[in-house]
Amino acid sequence: MNAPLPRNWDSLRQSRGRRLERAASLGLAGKNGKEIPVDRIIDLLEAVIQPGDRVCLEGNNQKQADFLSESLADCSPERINHLSLVQSVLALPSHVDLFERGLANRLDFSFSGPQGARLAKLVQEQRIEIGAIHTYLELFGRYFLDLTPNVALIAAQAADADGNLYLGPNTEDTPAIVEATAFKGGIVIAQVNERLEKLPRVDVPADWVDFTVLAPKPNYIEPLFTRDPAQITEVQVLMAMMAIKGIYAEYGVTRLNHGIGFDTAAIELLLPTYAADLGLKGKICTHWALNPHPTLIPAIESGFVESVHCFGSEVGMDAYISARSDVFFTGADGSMRSNRAFSQTAGLYACDMFIGSTLQMDMAGNSSTATLGRITGFGGAPNMGSDPHGRRHASPAWLKAGREAYGPNAIRGRKLVVQMVETFREHMAPVFVEELDAWQLQKTMGAELPPIMIYGDDVSHVVTEEGIANLLLCRSPEEREQAIRGVAGFTPVGLARDKAMVENLRDRGIVRRPEDLGIDPRQATRDLLAARSVKDLVRWSGGLYAPPSRFRNW
Amino acid sequence: MNAPLPRNWDSLRQSRGRRLERAASLGLAGKNGKEIPVDRIIDLLEAVIQPGDRVCLEGNNQKQADFLSESLADCSPERINHLSLVQSVLALPSHVDLFERGLANRLDFSFSGPQGARLAKLVQEQRIEIGAIHTYLELFGRYFLDLTPNVALIAAQAADADGNLYLGPNTEDTPAIVEATAFKGGIVIAQVNERLEKLPRVDVPADWVDFTVLAPKPNYIEPLFTRDPAQITEVQVLMAMMAIKGIYAEYGVTRLNHGIGFDTAAIELLLPTYAADLGLKGKICTHWALNPHPTLIPAIESGFVESVHCFGSEVGMDAYISARSDVFFTGADGSMRSNRAFSQTAGLYACDMFIGSTLQMDMAGNSSTATLGRITGFGGAPNMGSDPHGRRHASPAWLKAGREAYGPNAIRGRKLVVQMVETFREHMAPVFVEELDAWQLQKTMGAELPPIMIYGDDVSHVVTEEGIANLLLCRSPEEREQAIRGVAGFTPVGLARDKAMVENLRDRGIVRRPEDLGIDPRQATRDLLAARSVKDLVRWSGGLYAPPSRFRNW
Repeated sequence: MNAPLPRNWDSLRQSRGRRLERAASLGLAGKNGKEIPVDRIIDLLEAVIQPGDRVCLEGNNQKQADFLSESLADCSPERINHLSLVQSVLALPSHVDLFERGLANRLDFSFSGPQGARLAKLVQEQRIEIGAIHTYLELFGRYFLDLTPNVALIAAQAADADGNLYLGPNTEDTPAIVEATAFKGGIVIAQVNERLEKLPRVDVPADWVDFTVLAPKPNYIEPLFTRDPAQITEVQVLMAMMAIKGIYAEYGVTRLNHGIGFDTAAIELLLPTYAADLGLKGKICTHWALNPHPTLIPAIESGFVESVHCFGSEVGMDAYISARSDVFFTGADGSMRSNRAFSQTAGLYACDMFIGSTLQMDMAGNSSTATLGRITGFGGAPNMGSDPHGRRHASPAWLKAGREAYGPNAIRGRKLVVQMVETFREHMAPVFVEELDAWQLQKTMGAELPPIMIYGDDVSHVVTEEGIANLLLCRSPEEREQAIRGVAGFTPVGLARDKAMVENLRDRGIVRRPEDLGIDPRQATRDLLAARSVKDLVRWSGGLYAPPSRFRNW
Repeated sequence: MNAPLPRNWDSLRQSRGRRLERAASLGLAGKNGKEIPVDRIIDLLEAVIQPGDRVCLEGNNQKQADFLSESLADCSPERINHLSLVQSVLALPSHVDLFERGLANRLDFSFSGPQGARLAKLVQEQRIEIGAIHTYLELFGRYFLDLTPNVALIAAQAADADGNLYLGPNTEDTPAIVEATAFKGGIVIAQVNERLEKLPRVDVPADWVDFTVLAPKPNYIEPLFTRDPAQITEVQVLMAMMAIKGIYAEYGVTRLNHGIGFDTAAIELLLPTYAADLGLKGKICTHWALNPHPTLIPAIESGFVESVHCFGSEVGMDAYISARSDVFFTGADGSMRSNRAFSQTAGLYACDMFIGSTLQMDMAGNSSTATLGRITGFGGAPNMGSDPHGRRHASPAWLKAGREAYGPNAIRGRKLVVQMVETFREHMAPVFVEELDAWQLQKTMGAELPPIMIYGDDVSHVVTEEGIANLLLCRSPEEREQAIRGVAGFTPVGLARDKAMVENLRDRGIVRRPEDLGIDPRQATRDLLAARSVKDLVRWSGGLYAPPSRFRNW
């Protein structure tokens, strides 16, 4: 037996101690040591962040630690540099500034949205090294394995004098970030919208938080999940009818997640009308892992929905959520408790269906939202749009999909992963393509693999205005390809279909047109929508939904 | 547009209010309303639990709310009945008593371990309805979707007067259970080992907890992950050598999880010796999602291990963990912060390899720990032993496995899922079988599907004393079957192998014998183990590891 080697086993904690001492030596420690004056934030950041640190700047779909991000971008690149950012979302201009100004040079993330073009440019200029694009839950997992942050800069609604935090309805990523950082010798700094003597509830214990700073203005929140019903087209109504009758009803889908977009908003708005007329109330769409979409209000009010667990909240929905505590998860203070980690877990393992949209799909069913010149990332879609092989509980929808995929003697079920797209998107760009832009983007990024959002072998159905392709029933890659071409309409790949083979697939129920489903496209009018405007949604909510001003046109 | 229907949207919260009022009317509310005298616990349970409730009785691998479980079992089945239990582990006799005494009649769980035989008997007597057997993370996901508890009975180390909880090193399932229950109108009751004026740290805020009770004795903890090196056989040393040289080294596996058992304990004890001699220090086994196995101590002390995130703790390891804060996640109080939900997430998405054992494997590679007359469940194996299709970040191990599985143009990588078994287990029962007992058990349980722990198509390698079968390289179900038979030794299915085909597989490197790996079985002696006894482990730990008495024979 060898003697143990001499080693310092406490270096992370010692480093933490030195950082806190530096802050204290600058007078950055009040009576309880946690409240930092807003005009000293740069001093604090420069005292506790070291070159080469792994930093998580909390940014999610919605809640953004924008003040801390801007403050960090204003720090001296002489003092702070070679940072590695590990965070869900790179969405703010100041996030990109960190790279342009030389403070950070590496990024592991999930979603970049509006900053996708600037990010692609930085990659081309070799000013940023992208570790990987993740799905949220994957990145959270790495926080506890090999990408643990040294410093977390987070956003909370309020803090008390001890440093306890109240997150309000937008919990989002905060618990995952704080837990990983606080328990591995890291530093946690929270920007808060207000200081309160007594918090409505404690969401993050003071023990886990090192510093709080009252931000000059409330943290930025993006109403990312709000879709104005006025913009839903009749083509989307038709697709929604097909999805409800041809998939939701046939599989009896009760537990699900909807992606963002007008396609699924149309489904939400057809539940109280078209789906109710089909007798589906109580039989579909009862349990959701979903942000509080305003377009879900009519379905909730009509009694379709039993429970909704949310990743985060949505602007204007707070009063409505509080008044519907049987449906949403809320605290004793009445406000919602969301949590991205748990909702993504529910989306992965407890939902029978994920349905969402994409920008491109190839003939193997691989889809991507990556387009040339933009690195946008994936968000939660890869997680929720994958068939979890670890799932062991059965449900009718999962078993039926499993039998379709693997035959009558299937030893497992199958998740329904539905891609819902119009054959052409804006500027008449075809959604269905022979080769995804992701392959080009892989070269640009120098990535090991193309940034595919959902792999084709996880997709069960493709819904377009032309019909539904059931990929589960395809028995060869050729059948799969022709099933996709069969619903690709007048796109070049749609026109290149083998007509005889597609007719054969139609005879076997693999490709189904609206008429095969007993749907008359002429009935697909906006009159079917339970709400046809944001004002209608407000009315459904009994005045509880307070849409942001940009969605108010009355 | 239809008018909203009249509905009570606050029924869960109102029910909660009535339960709390019933408790208060019995005087079960102290000055702050949370501290309950131990002799009033049955009154409290009968006041706040209603027939038909969904109840989570915290039980995990180790930490058990045993006092609350026994107290619930002593409640009147006239008052409390038709409970549905939703909990990770059914491990205590009192858990089964709940069914035998008529308080509960439905169970959703993950693992039953020692109660597997009694559980099977209850099923046969139709006194219990099993919803499903889950993997842990799957059950946690359902807590937030369709299996949210009405009442959670949990275990904590300590409470303060306000009801804040300190969990100590065994966090395990507590955060997932409490969050789901507390924010959906449920009731949370914690048994605690001690009451403290000031907690070492706050793990669960008082806002989330309704009642605390000082248990008559500390909650039960099982040292489930401790393996005495004295019991490791030379066959296990040989298998460990093959795994290290033929899999860990070849794929460069740095991020991993080990199952429980002597097979993987042998690997842990060969890292400082055999693996170090192969020059693998720093190249393999650096980042772990793993409970603090005592057999990992020599690898940690030898500098192999950078980081370990744990599901829970292990008896006797607390002082060692505190003194190794660079490796483990610990709080400001020095004790560990574990968390099953996050560690399972890391095991799913951030690990490149899962390696574990099983009791049976069929010729498709499906494996199960279910044997006739016992319903034992799965624990975390289905989750960590599955290839996560949502993963998007690359690593050398994952890419190499992907290329082997899908060819050089693979668009995704692949997790390594290794099953490590001796061909015969105790009583000379063959591990390799034509048909799993799970099929019989399915009938007994009236389940929709057989209880398969890991599906064959997720398994990448099978390691036995006969060699390694690389299933990734098999190109047909026939090759797969023969590769498995090829390492099944003298079991009947091993003897029934097609010798020519197995030799062909060996020529192609799909089946590899020890000699193919340059391993001389005569060198596989216990001398290679870095520790050959529990006493050796204590010595490696510098006296910090304090094994439970049953592991002390000196």
